[in-house]
Parts: sequence; C-alpha cells; structure tokens
Amino acid sequence: MSDLKLVTKFDVTDGFFARYRKLVREVVLPYQENALNDRIEGAEKSHCIENFRMAAKKLHTGKCDGEFYGMVFQDSDVAKWLEGAAYSLAQTPDGELERRCDEIIELIGQAQHEDGYLNTYFTVKEPDKRWTNLHEAHELYCAGHMIEAGVAYAECTGKTRLLQIVCDMADCIYKHFIEDHAEGYPGHPEIELALMRLYRCTKEEKYKELALHFINVRGVNSDYFKQENKKNRWSVWGNDPENKEYAQNMAPVRMQKKAVGHAVRAVYLYAGMADAAKETQDESLADACKILWNNITQCRMYVTGAIGSAYEGEAFTKDYHLPNDTAYAETCAAIGLIFFSNKMLYLERNGKYTDIIERALYNCVLAGMQLDGTKFFYVNPLEVLPGISGEAQTHRHALPVRPKWFACACCPPNVARLLTSISEYVWHVTKDGLFSNLFLGGTLDLSDVYGGKVTLKTEYPYGNQVEYHFEPQNGTMSIPLAIRIPSWSKNTVFRINDKRINPEVKDGYAYISRNFSAEDVVIVEFEMLVRKIYTSNKVSANTGKAAVERGPLIYCAEGVDNGDDVLSLSLMKDGSITVSEYLPDKLFGIQELYAEGYKETVSDTLYSYEASREEKCKITLVPYYTWGNRGLNQMRVWIPEKK
Amino acid sequence: MSDLKLVTKFDVTDGFFARYRKLVREVVLPYQENALNDRIEGAEKSHCIENFRMAAKKLHTGKCDGEFYGMVFQDSDVAKWLEGAAYSLAQTPDGELERRCDEIIELIGQAQHEDGYLNTYFTVKEPDKRWTNLHEAHELYCAGHMIEAGVAYAECTGKTRLLQIVCDMADCIYKHFIEDHAEGYPGHPEIELALMRLYRCTKEEKYKELALHFINVRGVNSDYFKQENKKNRWSVWGNDPENKEYAQNMAPVRMQKKAVGHAVRAVYLYAGMADAAKETQDESLADACKILWNNITQCRMYVTGAIGSAYEGEAFTKDYHLPNDTAYAETCAAIGLIFFSNKMLYLERNGKYTDIIERALYNCVLAGMQLDGTKFFYVNPLEVLPGISGEAQTHRHALPVRPKWFACACCPPNVARLLTSISEYVWHVTKDGLFSNLFLGGTLDLSDVYGGKVTLKTEYPYGNQVEYHFEPQNGTMSIPLAIRIPSWSKNTVFRINDKRINPEVKDGYAYISRNFSAEDVVIVEFEMLVRKIYTSNKVSANTGKAAVERGPLIYCAEGVDNGDDVLSLSLMKDGSITVSEYLPDKLFGIQELYAEGYKETVSDTLYSYEASREEKCKITLVPYYTWGNRGLNQMRVWIPEKK
Repeated sequence: MSDLKLVTKFDVTDGFFARYRKLVREVVLPYQENALNDRIEGAEKSHCIENFRMAAKKLHTGKCDGEFYGMVFQDSDVAKWLEGAAYSLAQTPDGELERRCDEIIELIGQAQHEDGYLNTYFTVKEPDKRWTNLHEAHELYCAGHMIEAGVAYAECTGKTRLLQIVCDMADCIYKHFIEDHAEGYPGHPEIELALMRLYRCTKEEKYKELALHFINVRGVNSDYFKQENKKNRWSVWGNDPENKEYAQNMAPVRMQKKAVGHAVRAVYLYAGMADAAKETQDESLADACKILWNNITQCRMYVTGAIGSAYEGEAFTKDYHLPNDTAYAETCAAIGLIFFSNKMLYLERNGKYTDIIERALYNCVLAGMQLDGTKFFYVNPLEVLPGISGEAQTHRHALPVRPKWFACACCPPNVARLLTSISEYVWHVTKDGLFSNLFLGGTLDLSDVYGGKVTLKTEYPYGNQVEYHFEPQNGTMSIPLAIRIPSWSKNTVFRINDKRINPEVKDGYAYISRNFSAEDVVIVEFEMLVRKIYTSNKVSANTGKAAVERGPLIYCAEGVDNGDDVLSLSLMKDGSITVSEYLPDKLFGIQELYAEGYKETVSDTLYSYEASREEKCKITLVPYYTWGNRGLNQMRVWIPEKK
Repeated sequence: MSDLKLVTKFDVTDGFFARYRKLVREVVLPYQENALNDRIEGAEKSHCIENFRMAAKKLHTGKCDGEFYGMVFQDSDVAKWLEGAAYSLAQTPDGELERRCDEIIELIGQAQHEDGYLNTYFTVKEPDKRWTNLHEAHELYCAGHMIEAGVAYAECTGKTRLLQIVCDMADCIYKHFIEDHAEGYPGHPEIELALMRLYRCTKEEKYKELALHFINVRGVNSDYFKQENKKNRWSVWGNDPENKEYAQNMAPVRMQKKAVGHAVRAVYLYAGMADAAKETQDESLADACKILWNNITQCRMYVTGAIGSAYEGEAFTKDYHLPNDTAYAETCAAIGLIFFSNKMLYLERNGKYTDIIERALYNCVLAGMQLDGTKFFYVNPLEVLPGISGEAQTHRHALPVRPKWFACACCPPNVARLLTSISEYVWHVTKDGLFSNLFLGGTLDLSDVYGGKVTLKTEYPYGNQVEYHFEPQNGTMSIPLAIRIPSWSKNTVFRINDKRINPEVKDGYAYISRNFSAEDVVIVEFEMLVRKIYTSNKVSANTGKAAVERGPLIYCAEGVDNGDDVLSLSLMKDGSITVSEYLPDKLFGIQELYAEGYKETVSDTLYSYEASREEKCKITLVPYYTWGNRGLNQMRVWIPEKK
C-alpha cells in the first residue's frame, strides 16, 4: 500500500496551502522554466537547457559549438524543475506545460550516451573524466535528481520516457560501481534516496542494491576522496579532501553518531539511509538513523526546524551551537530534514518525527519564499540586524531581505517540488492504516484502498479544529484512521458526530478504526494555546530568552510592527499574550500576537552604569514565515524575558 | 619637556605591575630570545637571527647558503624584542643582556645595504623586488619596528649604533618616496608612528616629513595596491587589493569616518596620525582622529577595551556588532588602541582617553598573557564555551586556553614592550604639568624638570587609595600636578596631609599646583564601587545582560568557580555584590566578587514549554584578566540579569 501515489490522489483545497501551490504553479515554476531557457532579462543565465542541446549535438555530430556554462551540477536544475512540474500536472492538468516537459525530456534523452551515461558537464566539457572526481563533481548527485524526476514524471503523468532514460542511466552507474567494481561514493549524497524511489517504482532489485552499496561503502575507506584527488589531480572548487566531516565520509555510516558537515548533504544521506533501513529491515542502519536524527533535533536544530549553524561549509558545527544572526539555516537543509523525518516516520510511527516535519515546513521552509512567490532566502536567520546582517564580513550570507534569484538555483526549485508534493507528507497510507500527519484541507481519493474518499476541512495553522468527512462508495468505509496529535496540544478533544470519544493514543497518534458512513464527521480540537518556548541553557545565544509559538507557528518580532526597535524589547514573565482575530489583509492572512512586555530606553552611550529605564509595552508578533516581507527591518525570534 | 624619557625615569615598584615586569624580564624576553635563535626544542623555528646572518653574508660575499625562512615580516620579531629589551635594561641593568643586544645590533648593521636599505626577506629572497609590493610585503612595517627599536635602544642605553642604522634606513626610504617620487604607501601602517618617534629623537625634519607623506598620500589614490599588483604581479598572501577597507586606503585619511579593516593596522595608523596632528597642529588631521577614536570607543569596542569583531580579516565589522564568543579582539589591537589613545591624550587632555588606556590595559592586554608569563592569547573572547570555542568552524580562532607559542609571534613581544614601557602611559610630563594618568606604584625622577622625585604608593587595582610623596632636592618642588579621575569614580576625595581639598577638576583631571615639601602627602580616594555595566540595546549580543566592573577591572564568571555551569546563571537585578578580602594565593592575588543571582536548572531537552526552575545562588566572579588560568572551562563576561 505504500505504493499509493499520494501526490496524485490528494487535492489540496485549503486556503493556506492552496494559495502556496497556486503560487508555485503560476509564479515559481514558470519563472524557473524561463530561467532554464535563459529568457529572463538581467538575470544571470542558467544555460541549463542549452547545455543539454550542446551535449545532444555533440553525441550526434561529434562536435558542438559553444561551451558548457554554469555549475558542475547545472543539470540538476532541470531535473528538479521537471519533478516539481510533474507534481503540479498531477493536481492541475496543463496540456501545454506537459508538452513542453515532454520536449525537454526528449532533449535529455538525446543527450544520453549509448551506454546510458547522462551528464552534460562531462559530455560537453570533460568527456574523458567520467567518475574521476566523485568528491566534487556532483555526477551522482545530478543522477539522483534526474532519477527523482523520472520517477515523479512517470507516476504523475503515466509517461515513462524519462523513467526509461534514468533506468538506463542507473544501469550505467550499476555497471561501473557494481559489475566493474569501481571504488568510491558520492561527494554529495542524493542518489541513495533516489535509487530507493526508483526501486519502489520499478521493483528492480539492482537499484536497491546500488543504493545500499553507496550507503554501505561510504566512509569505509575514508581516504577515498584524498586518493582520488591524488590520482586524478583535478578539482572543481578546491575543496579539501581531508575534511572528511564535510561530506560525511569520516566513518562508515553505521558508526556515525553526530550530524556533521554540509547540512544538505547530511540529511539527504540520512533520508536515503532511513529509507533503505525500512525497506531492508536493517536494524543497525535504523539505529544509526535514530542516533543521527536525535542528535540533530536534540542538539543541533533551530526552533524553526532550520539546521546548519555555520556559513563555513554550509554546515553543522557542534552540539548546542545555535547562533541566531549568523545561522546558515539553509532552506534546502530544512527540506532535507523533512525528507529524513518522513522516512523515519515510515521506519517508526511516532509523532515526534511529524512534529519536526511540521516545524520545518511551517517555519523555515515557508520563510524561504517571499509571500508573493517571487523571491527566496537560502539562509533563514532567527535574528536580523539591519546594518550588520548581509553586510558585516561574518554576516554576508545572512541577507535581511530576499534577493531576486540566485546563480546557484538550488533552494527555489526545492521549495517548489516540496510544496507540489506535500501530499506525500500530509498522509501516509500503510498496511497499518491511514495516517493523518499534517492538517491540510482537501480530499484524498482512497477508492483503491478503502472504497471511498476522505475530506479534511480545517483553517489550520490558524484554526485549531480539523474535521474528517467521508464519501464511501458503498455505504461505509472501514478505515483504520490514525490522527497525529501535535506535541504542543496538551489536551486534544476528539468527537464523532458531536459525541466525545477517547481514542487510543500511542506515540503521538490517536487511533480511530471504524466503519465510516457519509454522515460521520470526526472532529478534532487541538489545544492551540500561545506558548512560550525556552531553550536549554547549554545554548549560549538564547540564555534568558524565550520565543513564542502558537500551534505549529513560531512567531517573531519585526521592527515594522514595533517602532523599529526590536532589540529594546523584552517579554514579561507570566505576562499575557493575546491572539488577534484573523487578519485577511495582513501578510496574506495571519493572526498576530500581542505580548505584554517591556521596552527599554536606548542608552546614548555604548556602555553605561545605569540600567536603562523600562516601561511596559505591547509587543506585536507575526508568524516567522512572514518575516522580511515588508522591507528592511529588525527581526528577532528569541527575546529576553524579564519578570 | 615631552622629551623626558619616562621609561628611564620611573621605577615601577608596586606589587601588581612589578610582578608583570619581572615576568617579562625573566620569562618572556628570555623565551623570545631563545626563539629568535631557534634554541627552543619542539617549537616552530623562527630563523629570525639566521635570516640576518644570511643577509649579512650575502652582502659581504655575494652569496649565502640556505634560504630565507619565516613570515615576510620576520625581521620585526627581533626589532620588537630589542625594543622590549631596551626598556627592560633601562629599569634593570643587565650587562650580559646588553652585550647580546649589541651583538644582534651589530649583525643587523652588517645586513644593511650601503644605501641604507634593510630587510632580510628582500635581501636574501627577492633582491630585485624592493618596494614592488607595498600592499602585502610589510617592508615599511618592518622598517617601522626597527626604527622604534633604534630609538628605544638609544634612549634607554645611550648607545646609538642601532639609531644610526635606522636613520640610514629611513634616509633610504626618504630618497625613494620623497626625492625619487615613488608612489605608494604601506599596506600595514606602523612606520608613520615610528618616524614621528625618530623625528623627536633626532630632531631631523625629514623624518617628520616622511611620516606626514605616508599619512597624506594614503588612500588619495585608493587604487594604488591594485595598480601595483597589476604591474608587478606577485603576491605574498593573495590578499585582494580591491578590499580597500582592509588596509584603510579606501579614502584619504582625513575623509575616513569609521574605523574599518584589520584592527591592528587601523589603530597603528591612527596613532601615527594623532601623533602627527599634535606635532604639526594639523586640525583637520586631529578632527579625523577624534572621529575615528569616537567611532571605535562608542560603537566598536568591547567592554574589555578589545577591538576587532571578526576573525575574517582580523577586523572591525560594523557599528554595534560585538559578538562575545566569536570576537577576534586581538591583544595587539588592544595595545594599538592604547598607543592611539595615548597620542590622543597628548592631543587633547581628557580623561576619556586615559579611561580607555586603562580599560584595554587591565583587561584585554593582561588577559593576553598567562599569569605565569608562559603562554599567550592572540584572541580574547568575552565568552568561552568548551566544545565550541576553538572547535566549531566559526570559533577556531577563539581558543579556550592559551596555547604555547605561535609561528606568527606578534602578540607576545608586543605585550613585552608595552609592559616594559608602561611608564610612558603612567605619567605625562608636558609644559602644562605633571599628569598622573595610571596608578602604578613607584618613584618618578623629576630632578631635571621639577627638582626632585615623586613617589606613588597604591594597591591599585585592588586598593582605591593613591598616595603621592615628594622628595625635593631643595626644600620644595613646585609641581603643577594633574591627577586623573577615572570615570567610574563618581565621588573622589582628595586630601593633602589629612586635610580635604577640592581641586579644580576639568575633563577628568584634578589639578593641584603647589610647592610640595618632603612632608607633604597627597592622598586620593577613589569611589571603587562594584558596578553593573550595561550595553546599548543596539548591541544584540548583550540585550538583557549586565557585566560587572570594579575599579578598572571587568569581572567574569568562570565554570571552575560556579559548578561548571556558567550559562545557567543570571544576575539578580538590584541584588548585592560583595567584595572578598584580598586573596593573595588565588590567581597571584585577586579580590573576587560574590553576586546575588539565580541558577536555573538545565532542561534535558533542547526546547521546552516550561521555563526552567530557578533558585537563588551566589555567583563568584574573578577579574577578566585572570580567566583561562585554571584549565578548560566556561567563561562569560555578559550575564543575563533578572529581577
């Protein structure tokens, strides 16, 4: 039953996420398609499609005019775009878009070598250097994204041309690494999780075998990148092959106890590991995943679900090092944490994984995109200081407003493919039942499995009530329904048809198995209180401070709502925090919070012997995902708390 | 009267500083002399003396065996050592040390070219590249330090051999840049302040002219380093000549309004500018100095007197960006701020400059040296987190304990020469009177000026009382005495022979002009309260926090005194802070403080909805200059404050 393609079965209709998906469909995907085709005035050219054209021409004529342009992983841009477009087509058919996708897929096919090899950088620029720089050249990373696109496109449109292309490519990789016993493993993990998807889609054992191979050999020879560099003597970025933590190859994966190195690489790897552990019932691999997931979420994760504390290496640093203003906190890394947590949830049904998916999604990931879909953050700091953020040499990465587009276009298409495939996280349909993980309104077609449809109605994340309605094809639907109870909801009320029930609750899920008829409504009321949240004192940046959360949303104070002086504010200990009515016209619809607090007068001097006077004030807080949409201003999530 | 060589006239005898000077004499200078001669087992070789031997041999025989070794500025190590040794000889004659100094000076003379040029890197390694990389090659920086050594050695020993060498060298530089009209200015300022010293020592106008030249041309052609790089095509470090702020050449110096770039370069430059402004009564230059000094001390200085907020470029960043744990806060930069402030004090008699000298000296500079004189910090953070400090990629520079010695030996000899020449800052003797700036016990011989001696007795920085005793040669001494009142002493009591007086106070100095007899004692009692100090709310790192100060000393909490958990502590607002008796056996003699505060229980989880329980506790604080002398542990200067 895990083969059910949720992305094709769930029609998101709620106000909150339907708006985002419309943005992706109408703004993000078209913009990126134009970018891939170099049709955007003033933007740095992508050359991505052109690279494929040149590779195709070279393969068919023996030569090509022009040169490869872009990042060594430029191919992955078109792959991620195709994947997002596929999901969008599954929900919103669009013949013209599909035709253009088919054309691009045809072009990709023409750029593929007879032996299945596919990578325009190597075909056009370095034809003799295949597989000679696994450390930096992102060949297997690009292959992974192309595989994901091939699987997604087949599942969403039924068309298998790209699937066949990526199978041929995977066969080529299999031959090199398995049949021909080539040493090595990818510098940037991604192919592991992609091969697991390809395996599930095609049932071809060799793809699972190849995924497991890359997982199992990683770090066994921890000097591989060093040896490769010494032997082949070429470099893309000049990365130090001695820095083994950077690419998580300092030890075999089952021996790794701390989440280290480049955060995106790390969570992509762990997602593949968790998927493989589930599929093969490999307990030692599952244990490693649990240890790493715990290390991230208990010692190395921001309250927004962001990960990666340092710009240097875009990386994890050390336990409890979570600086707010210099955080790297890359959007792609939060998305990777969602991938990882989602695989953990399949491995071990526990609401703690879903809590993290929700935390990362509603806070870090959504903050990554301007509310109008036109601009993106790669870096999602928890504190912004105009004049310092984006300017001081330590803060150049931590931009205070979203820039237009990036030469390295990794995060925007990742947001696009996550939001268009969100159904895969909202619901899980397994042999143990129907799991309602996230609360997005819409209708899930379960005709093939349970003989009917389930519709979820909610105003989440602002409303605290979730309703489940049923459309059985034949009178009733027997569904083992499991509804997640978020950890922030201490008291959750369940009703069926206005009658309170007390379902069995286990590990964050409430289990309600029943023959549902069309008249039945399951109503869940979460206790969506405003809560202050505190950090362990081991985190220096947050001592004496609190953040404010309501439901899944972390709130922040922005200068524009608070007299342009957020740094003078402190929350009143035991002070009240009230919730506004829903404000449809503010920031595309939010509820804001008003907290009792203090405002200190700012001292004229850098240092003074007098504590500044403080007066009571009302602090206005807005959801973190909306920050930076109203121009350059201060922003703070963690605010000092005083009696 | 500013020609009085205070370093030869003041015999420091107080317990606090005499101990430091003994350390420098008995530990630091001998260690460094051995290092210069490559006589230290296991330490990275210096090769400094050997470089001079090779240069001398090459000049006299046309060839040399071996190769130049060390930093491009390696020559400056011997210069700074000679300068420190000279000051030490002035106070503590040592025939053997002086003989060895003379030998080294003779060797330096032999390494000098006939035209006066002196730099072993260029003589041995790059004989054809003189003056072709002012940006990076530190030629003029090394010259500056050698000039300072020559002046100091002449003034302290009366021997003029090194002075003659540096005069010949300065003449060579004068010929190149003035007579031959060579373009350019030093990448690392230092020669400006050195040439001003040489001018005052020799009365030779051309040295002042050359100092003013370097000051005046700096940044006028802000592309000079770029042009030089394009023309001569060689690089030492690969520094970017487009980064004009790094070496303060983005604009003519009189147009510079913010302290930017490499902090040591900046304050060395500003010290030279302030000296020149005073000497030439150049108001526009003086104004620039005041603006820059104000910018540093009002927007870019740590409470310890440290400067340089970022490791990247060892540099200033932006106004109000003062991170505690990732501070660069280099010992040399604090010393440079003392140089700059001391020149400002000559330019404009105001206690605010002395306050900063004292703040930087008693806190950042003294913390730079292990209490036993054997180890040094380059970086002086205000917060240390074991497991993160010195380990996370953002904190590699911020070591939690002092390492043994450095390949780049800039800070230790700088501490040595500052402490051995401290008299220059303690007293100023000008046409306006005798200024008592810092309170170090000892006897100042003013026979040449005021016909007698003045002895200062104090237990400063732990005692709040300072006594001035007089030894007139002929009955009385008529001294226009001006005593600084530190800004932290709100109520200061003055007595002469037990009778209270109310001297005229102006700009932080109390003026007491009188014919003093041998029976007279001037007693000053400062109000040495324990005070909390607060930072402007513009500094994000310190919102909601306070630091604790007593007299000139900033205090800090270390783990070793506080149950290894400093991050759980908060100071009680309006809580009492008591002062211990003097503890002669703790940290070579300190008074510690006990502050009423709270200790929070540490949450087991990274984030929790419950504020952790807090209980009242006593927080033990020790002087910041003593931190890190008891092994690896937490340290914090800024501590949250709660009601």
